[in-house]
Amino acid sequence: MPDLVVRNGLVYLGCDLVAADLVVSGGRVTGIVQRGEAPPSAQDLDAAGLVVLPGLIDQHVHFREPGYEYKEDFYTGSRAAAAGGITMYVDMPNLDPPPNTLERFLAQNQLAAAKSVVDFNHWAMPTRLDEIAKIAQAGAAGFKVFMKSAHYPYGSEISITDHGQLLEAFRAIAATGRPCLVHPHNQMLWEQRVAARVAEGRVGLADWADATYGDDDVVETTAIATIVLLAKAVGLRLCVLHVQGRPQVRLVRMLKASGFRFLAETNPWSIVHIDPIGLRDPEDLAENFRAMNEGTVDLIGSDHAPHTLEEHEQCKVNAFESVVAGYPLCEHWAAIFLTAVNQGKLSLRRFVEMGSTTPARHIGVYPRKGVIRVGSDADFVIVDMERTAVLGETYPVYSKIGFTPLHGLQVQGVPVYTIVRGQVVMDHGEVVGRPGTGQFVPPLRADPEQER
Amino acid sequence: MPDLVVRNGLVYLGCDLVAADLVVSGGRVTGIVQRGEAPPSAQDLDAAGLVVLPGLIDQHVHFREPGYEYKEDFYTGSRAAAAGGITMYVDMPNLDPPPNTLERFLAQNQLAAAKSVVDFNHWAMPTRLDEIAKIAQAGAAGFKVFMKSAHYPYGSEISITDHGQLLEAFRAIAATGRPCLVHPHNQMLWEQRVAARVAEGRVGLADWADATYGDDDVVETTAIATIVLLAKAVGLRLCVLHVQGRPQVRLVRMLKASGFRFLAETNPWSIVHIDPIGLRDPEDLAENFRAMNEGTVDLIGSDHAPHTLEEHEQCKVNAFESVVAGYPLCEHWAAIFLTAVNQGKLSLRRFVEMGSTTPARHIGVYPRKGVIRVGSDADFVIVDMERTAVLGETYPVYSKIGFTPLHGLQVQGVPVYTIVRGQVVMDHGEVVGRPGTGQFVPPLRADPEQER
Repeated sequence: MPDLVVRNGLVYLGCDLVAADLVVSGGRVTGIVQRGEAPPSAQDLDAAGLVVLPGLIDQHVHFREPGYEYKEDFYTGSRAAAAGGITMYVDMPNLDPPPNTLERFLAQNQLAAAKSVVDFNHWAMPTRLDEIAKIAQAGAAGFKVFMKSAHYPYGSEISITDHGQLLEAFRAIAATGRPCLVHPHNQMLWEQRVAARVAEGRVGLADWADATYGDDDVVETTAIATIVLLAKAVGLRLCVLHVQGRPQVRLVRMLKASGFRFLAETNPWSIVHIDPIGLRDPEDLAENFRAMNEGTVDLIGSDHAPHTLEEHEQCKVNAFESVVAGYPLCEHWAAIFLTAVNQGKLSLRRFVEMGSTTPARHIGVYPRKGVIRVGSDADFVIVDMERTAVLGETYPVYSKIGFTPLHGLQVQGVPVYTIVRGQVVMDHGEVVGRPGTGQFVPPLRADPEQER
Repeated sequence: MPDLVVRNGLVYLGCDLVAADLVVSGGRVTGIVQRGEAPPSAQDLDAAGLVVLPGLIDQHVHFREPGYEYKEDFYTGSRAAAAGGITMYVDMPNLDPPPNTLERFLAQNQLAAAKSVVDFNHWAMPTRLDEIAKIAQAGAAGFKVFMKSAHYPYGSEISITDHGQLLEAFRAIAATGRPCLVHPHNQMLWEQRVAARVAEGRVGLADWADATYGDDDVVETTAIATIVLLAKAVGLRLCVLHVQGRPQVRLVRMLKASGFRFLAETNPWSIVHIDPIGLRDPEDLAENFRAMNEGTVDLIGSDHAPHTLEEHEQCKVNAFESVVAGYPLCEHWAAIFLTAVNQGKLSLRRFVEMGSTTPARHIGVYPRKGVIRVGSDADFVIVDMERTAVLGETYPVYSKIGFTPLHGLQVQGVPVYTIVRGQVVMDHGEVVGRPGTGQFVPPLRADPEQER
């Protein structure tokens, strides 16, 4: 008798929604059968009127452990992920200590294994060239580079601002075959722009946005062009983070059209306003949707990055001396993007590709994850495309931090079940998965369809 | 009676060679008439069997004055220019003192006016933001930025390696409407690459080339992408220097195809080997010609950059602590490129555009210069496309420095007269123009066809 049958749903198979029942045993999909044809099972889940998608994979979360557990930890973070339909996450390394050695990486991994509700891996920090191969060998998804160096969360120990050091890190990572995410940032431009504004006492959020995005977003575009060229030179699998707005999208489109191969990640603020991050002109919003639909942007990461209310208050005093933006997002981004699907702005196909399939390929776990097919992990997010909710109210914040800048935003299209390897970890907003349910998922050995 | 008639030549008019006589009065072309129709004149020049082209404009010469007159000065440099068919040059500002103030600019200008055999202007140095508008107002062709900082000729006083400072310089120059040349260079990458090689005792010319061009030429390509993005952000008229080789050419082609507007300059070593500068694979050579013929590369600058034999010897001891490459070229580049025209590798049309018309537009002196038409300055280079010569032997070096790395190279297609505003300054290899013949030529006030 199978462990679980998901009955009566519309299941995302290939690129279509198909009326089918999903049979699950031993954590895997063992059958995809016509409605009513599934055998009796230990557990039944009725998905009538619901859409069954591959579990979402959030490759961009800051779960703050170790070092900043007052903001988030692997339990609270993964709980928020489960609430948001995420069946696997990959967390970011701006931690204390940062996972830049094998020993630290393994210690972090143990913390996650003990507490996590959903599956996981980690991005390690490539600031120690001699540790890169060892960390990759231990099964890390890959590496993450912060080109920005500033106050926390961009401390100097976790940043690589020197292009020479960056190229050598890229070279070492490329040799492992693992990908590298980069937060693109031109530190020289940034410092000049910040200094000019601070000298005039212009230290508000609008000044931060102007320093960051002004002059055609050169702080980021020049960095994107640089890392794409460096990655190409050494054969690195590069993923450019935070791509949004016309200058970045057009640059990425140009580079891809010219044969440079890399992935571009976008984030929820490319389609909903989270002051002061992202470009906010309606033309930028339109460009962001165009980029997602046409494939210029490859995948979605939440950049779930909680900070306390006190830290955010501090940033209103001086935006250049505190955290700016950085909010809980992994519980809500599926609903935010599904709302756009309901509005006809984004295809469901692109939502699934950007939210599950492409991240799975990127981190090397496809086709174990990122797709519903026989033999794959039974990772599903079951969504009610009709259901509406209000963020922060009927759709609460699950992060330890307890608030969202999107409070009051109405969404339509909400995850109602999250299933990890056949185990229901979220049921209509209640996270029922236990700490330790989640497993570490290293890259598959052979991955013929892996995207670069 | 006209001052001069050039009779019996094939004259480059529009894009064609036309059998015509050129009538010159008061330094200007006053008539273009059918052969035999020109009136008697004070001076006749028989161009039978010769081709009359617009005088070449070399926008990239280092004439070393003030500060380094032991290598070159405005007389010896402009003498070499006259020998090479150049009727106007624009010299580079890595001088001592560098022309980064109006006062220094005017002092340099006086030196050139006293000594120059051909017409001239200067690229000023934009290291003093408060002087940029004043220098532009004084008629400077524009500005030149060295992104490379090293030993002379790249001293720190004359370099801008910080991207923040660079953007503000670009902004100030853009406000003047004048163009800016940039030697693209990623200083961070360069320093890391040099340090790595020096640490291993790898300090030869091949190591210099590897540090410079290795890893897909990222030291230069990342800088090119950066400056093109910065220039676009502030509306700067940018000219990227030293473009050659597949990585750079392909990047420039991509950027231009995507709508970025800027000029790309190439140099003689894109088509003849001058160890160790330039990429030397046959594929790079082919790409360079493709770039010139299709217009990816816009113009030719000689980068005439004499250093003494002793300085070059020093560079064989440690290529990272002395001058590398940097040779007399302005007397020879016309013949080098005309040889390629004779070989069918480059069209005569593109030679004239890259060597005269486009530089004239770039520095704002078109259509006074850069074209043969009624009303234009009577600046001609008259070439014998059949004539062969051997560089350093039958075609001597005119630079003060007295030697060329291209010694022994056979060329076909040689300037036999250079005429500046109706005055013959070079006649069959003999420079007959006097110091002071050359005039300062500021940008024209109205320049409807000016290229960006």
